[in-house]
Amino acid sequence: MTIIGVGLIGGSLARALKEQNLVGEVVGVNRSRDSLTKALELGVIDHWTTSPAQGVRGAEFVLVATPVLTIPRIVGDIAPALQSGAVVTDAGSVKGGMVLACEELMPEGCHFVGGHPIAGTEHSGVESSFATLYHGSRTILTPTQRTSPEALDLVRQVWEAVGSRVETMDAHHHDQVLAATSHLPHLIAYNVVNTLSDLEEELLAEVFRYAAGGFRDFTRIASSDPAMWRDICIANQEAILDTLARFRASLDMLTKRVRDADRDGLYGVFARSKRTRDRIVTRTGVER
Amino acid sequence: MTIIGVGLIGGSLARALKEQNLVGEVVGVNRSRDSLTKALELGVIDHWTTSPAQGVRGAEFVLVATPVLTIPRIVGDIAPALQSGAVVTDAGSVKGGMVLACEELMPEGCHFVGGHPIAGTEHSGVESSFATLYHGSRTILTPTQRTSPEALDLVRQVWEAVGSRVETMDAHHHDQVLAATSHLPHLIAYNVVNTLSDLEEELLAEVFRYAAGGFRDFTRIASSDPAMWRDICIANQEAILDTLARFRASLDMLTKRVRDADRDGLYGVFARSKRTRDRIVTRTGVER
Repeated sequence: MTIIGVGLIGGSLARALKEQNLVGEVVGVNRSRDSLTKALELGVIDHWTTSPAQGVRGAEFVLVATPVLTIPRIVGDIAPALQSGAVVTDAGSVKGGMVLACEELMPEGCHFVGGHPIAGTEHSGVESSFATLYHGSRTILTPTQRTSPEALDLVRQVWEAVGSRVETMDAHHHDQVLAATSHLPHLIAYNVVNTLSDLEEELLAEVFRYAAGGFRDFTRIASSDPAMWRDICIANQEAILDTLARFRASLDMLTKRVRDADRDGLYGVFARSKRTRDRIVTRTGVER
Repeated sequence: MTIIGVGLIGGSLARALKEQNLVGEVVGVNRSRDSLTKALELGVIDHWTTSPAQGVRGAEFVLVATPVLTIPRIVGDIAPALQSGAVVTDAGSVKGGMVLACEELMPEGCHFVGGHPIAGTEHSGVESSFATLYHGSRTILTPTQRTSPEALDLVRQVWEAVGSRVETMDAHHHDQVLAATSHLPHLIAYNVVNTLSDLEEELLAEVFRYAAGGFRDFTRIASSDPAMWRDICIANQEAILDTLARFRASLDMLTKRVRDADRDGLYGVFARSKRTRDRIVTRTGVER
């Protein structure tokens, strides 16, 4: 197995498979030698190289777990070096367009399956990876008409083996759903913190001081990897702009109700949100 | 001691003081008899009444822990019934204006001290109260020139006894700081969930399904009590409108960067937010 991008996502998959002896040698590929040396020390990988093409030689299974805009380029780089029958998958948070591009790049006898394990923490890097990251998570695979059923099955087995529930979905539909559940909340959390960053230094110091538990929970996702989120914004631009527009219209209505001191209107919007949120939590099970 | 509004905040204070035998009889006052019966069963209070004036008879210490807009009215109702030397404090999240109004209402020999224990969970009601809620929290008291030093000291001792760090601050300054650390994040969390509530039922079902841990953390505060937040918006209207305007300007800039696929601009805003957030967490200590 080869992991291209040995960070939180790739490192956690390698750890989980190794713990169960489900994988032989794991080759790690990264641009940064420091990360690779650390991954080797931690026992997450067995060998490493900074060359993707060299890294996939002899691999049966390849996971590309890098920022989403780099994935087609990396798949293009490794394509000529893949052995026949190799299965390549990815962990990108945006799938539309990218999946077809990667399929096109596959040589005869090799297979690409678009994938997205919905898991993570606000920490990044291989030092943050852990074997149980995927326990209880969901993974979405986005097969196309051209996807090999055997390749799809292998990728499904890999994610299931590490504790994830695997489902399949159309790539564009995936991007719409994720824009709402993940991309919007991340952008908004970044934006809340960014708004505070603009405060005068003295007030900001007090904000730091009185930020309670709720604030820390709320802004946790604003500590996520900036490069990853830059790529997501560009790759899922359309769906993200659509959810941002809906959010802004809703915010303008809320602001008007504050300005009008509209007691019933404010109560209504808060009560409705509370009902929806309580429903979400109940349906998706115990809070993690 | 009398607790007017026996919910999460009032109930937790009563539990914590009782556990340490720091209080004699606790009288609970609420509009809802059900809550009071429950509080009595749980041992949070020893007696109850639905009449605030009747509830404070003989009390040395009164906490008003009700939605912020109701506080001056309740203080007005209890004022004639207070015994000489009684100290009244509150737990409202907005202090400016309200503190002066309550002071005015105090009869000769009785004292009002504005207070705000910065603690809570997304749950409300006496059944959610617990004795350790205030451990490691901060409480802000907002004395004025007229505040009695002895009354201030008593209120300080009460909050310190239950594990809170007490600081004093000007009431209007308190409202500005809280608008940024607490009121903005709550309104934005409500608004994110409200935006999702507008999705078609089918897509909403999928949003529920794929909402991962980050989403649950991010929206936890949107499960807070709607009546409490309606009152906060009206009582702190000016500071909230100011932070909402800053947030919106920042959001418009972020949206423009998404629309322009501005890689450097997006990376810049995310990296800056991450730095600020990591600083906040480091300065305010271990995550709770």
